[in-house]
Amino acid sequence: MEKQEMMYEGKAKQVYASEDPNLVIIHYKDDATAFNGLKKASISNKGVLNNKITTILFQQLNQRGIRTHWVETLNDRDQLCRKVSIVPLEVIVRNVVAGSMAKKFGIEEGTVLKEPVFEICYKNDELGDPMINDTHAVGLGFATRDELDQIYAITSQVNEALKEIFDQINIRLIDFKLEFGKDSEGQILLADEISPDTCRFWEKGTDKKLDKDRFRRELGDVIGAYEEIYGRLSQWVNAK
Amino acid sequence: MEKQEMMYEGKAKQVYASEDPNLVIIHYKDDATAFNGLKKASISNKGVLNNKITTILFQQLNQRGIRTHWVETLNDRDQLCRKVSIVPLEVIVRNVVAGSMAKKFGIEEGTVLKEPVFEICYKNDELGDPMINDTHAVGLGFATRDELDQIYAITSQVNEALKEIFDQINIRLIDFKLEFGKDSEGQILLADEISPDTCRFWEKGTDKKLDKDRFRRELGDVIGAYEEIYGRLSQWVNAK
Ligand SMILES: Nc1ncnc2c1ncn2[C@@H]1O[C@H](COP(=O)(O)OP(=O)(O)OP(=O)(O)O)[C@@H](O)[C@H]1O
Ligand SMILES: Nc1ncnc2c1ncn2[C@@H]1O[C@H](COP(=O)(O)OP(=O)(O)OP(=O)(O)O)[C@@H](O)[C@H]1O
Ligand SMILES: [Mg+2]
Ligand SMILES: [Mg+2]
Repeated sequence: MEKQEMMYEGKAKQVYASEDPNLVIIHYKDDATAFNGLKKASISNKGVLNNKITTILFQQLNQRGIRTHWVETLNDRDQLCRKVSIVPLEVIVRNVVAGSMAKKFGIEEGTVLKEPVFEICYKNDELGDPMINDTHAVGLGFATRDELDQIYAITSQVNEALKEIFDQINIRLIDFKLEFGKDSEGQILLADEISPDTCRFWEKGTDKKLDKDRFRRELGDVIGAYEEIYGRLSQWVNAK
Repeated sequence: MEKQEMMYEGKAKQVYASEDPNLVIIHYKDDATAFNGLKKASISNKGVLNNKITTILFQQLNQRGIRTHWVETLNDRDQLCRKVSIVPLEVIVRNVVAGSMAKKFGIEEGTVLKEPVFEICYKNDELGDPMINDTHAVGLGFATRDELDQIYAITSQVNEALKEIFDQINIRLIDFKLEFGKDSEGQILLADEISPDTCRFWEKGTDKKLDKDRFRRELGDVIGAYEEIYGRLSQWVNAK
């Protein structure tokens, strides 16, 4: 499958048309941004690692019967995926309080939630991706009630699957962000990526951060953290 | 019923113990605040009008079978109400986009919503009453899922009742804020007040603002707006 014209360039990835109108090729870049684009850098090899990590995780989800956009990984930086129209929501799952939730409620980072918190944000850079609720999403036409129900059901399944996987490689899944899309038949699929760019991973025991917070907070050795996640995941997959 | 010791003094009201441990006396002050307490003033007679307006509306809701804390209005400024422990949520209903929702989404004030939007905010002045969602409320213990279901059900009924009432007096009900409490038996009741301090009212036809936005935005003749709302409501009640 060869890349055709570039359809969209985001901060971390490029989306290309493919020879099949129902499929796109997603190219993982090394670019990193934080704080709504204010902080920028290139982190050598990040795109390769995020492609590999997302590949393992989407394969695992597909095996568990969760519908994702992932079809095939073509090379170090490119994935063949089902083309979707992205639902303009970021769906955030929090198992442990961190980041903006800690700030919003004045709660210490690391506080374990008895029930996972699900948040949705309206994907709109100009407005700063504001947190909204289901009545906004439905009332403003970002998704139907039925689509939200499907999205939350898949989100729950993804959380259970990821918690189980990361538990086995001694990583705590603190929180993560998902995106969903609709394929040409109107089916809701999990899209985008699952990587240290979009999750918070803390090493069990030490609570060492192994994710993009190393970049956001200038903690050093960003790529080492991404390598650690990929290393543990690939070893686990190979040992199965 | 005589006032006993003051239990709580808020920005707009005082809450006193009464001779009955299950009842409180709520005293309506003339104080007005906006922007999380940054803007302050005393608006002569506002407390009297808000007491009278809330009285009419809570009576109407009670007649429609909606459980409220209101028992009896004692005088110009005092109401006898069921004592509740307040659920630490502000429940906001929006029929038309205005105020913070207009800003958040970059939508023009006055845009009519196809479905009402319900928002909940965590009542916490220090944190600035942040908007939250149901999973935060349940996960952080502000309310149970069952309590939220009851709160939303009552909120819907209140919205339908208020829209019907204000329609008859040629006022558009743009949005409003409710508070709920639990009585000694754990029953969820509508509490606090419903007044131009807690609602946006626009005159049909002219869209003239007849609510606290006259104070927030320095539109002049604040008390005239409150008098207009009370005048139309009392005439309507007397004509029934
Ligand atoms: N299967 C897919 N089909 C079409 N678009 C997709 C698919 N999966 C992801 N996308 C979209 O491709 C873009 C990926 O690029 P990237 O992650 O760099 O975006 P971004 O900079 O995070 O910006 P934003 O997500 O705000 O658009 C995103 O807009 C994402 O929603
Ligand atoms: N039936 C009731 N029993 C006990 N407390 C009540 C009852 N009804 C309302 N209250 C509470 O009494 C207070 C009313 O005061 P006021 O409206 O002045 O508060 P406020 O300045 O808006 O502050 P707050 O942030 O506490 O609402 C509020 O805290 C309200 O929640
Ligand atoms: Mg992205
Ligand atoms: Mg109040």
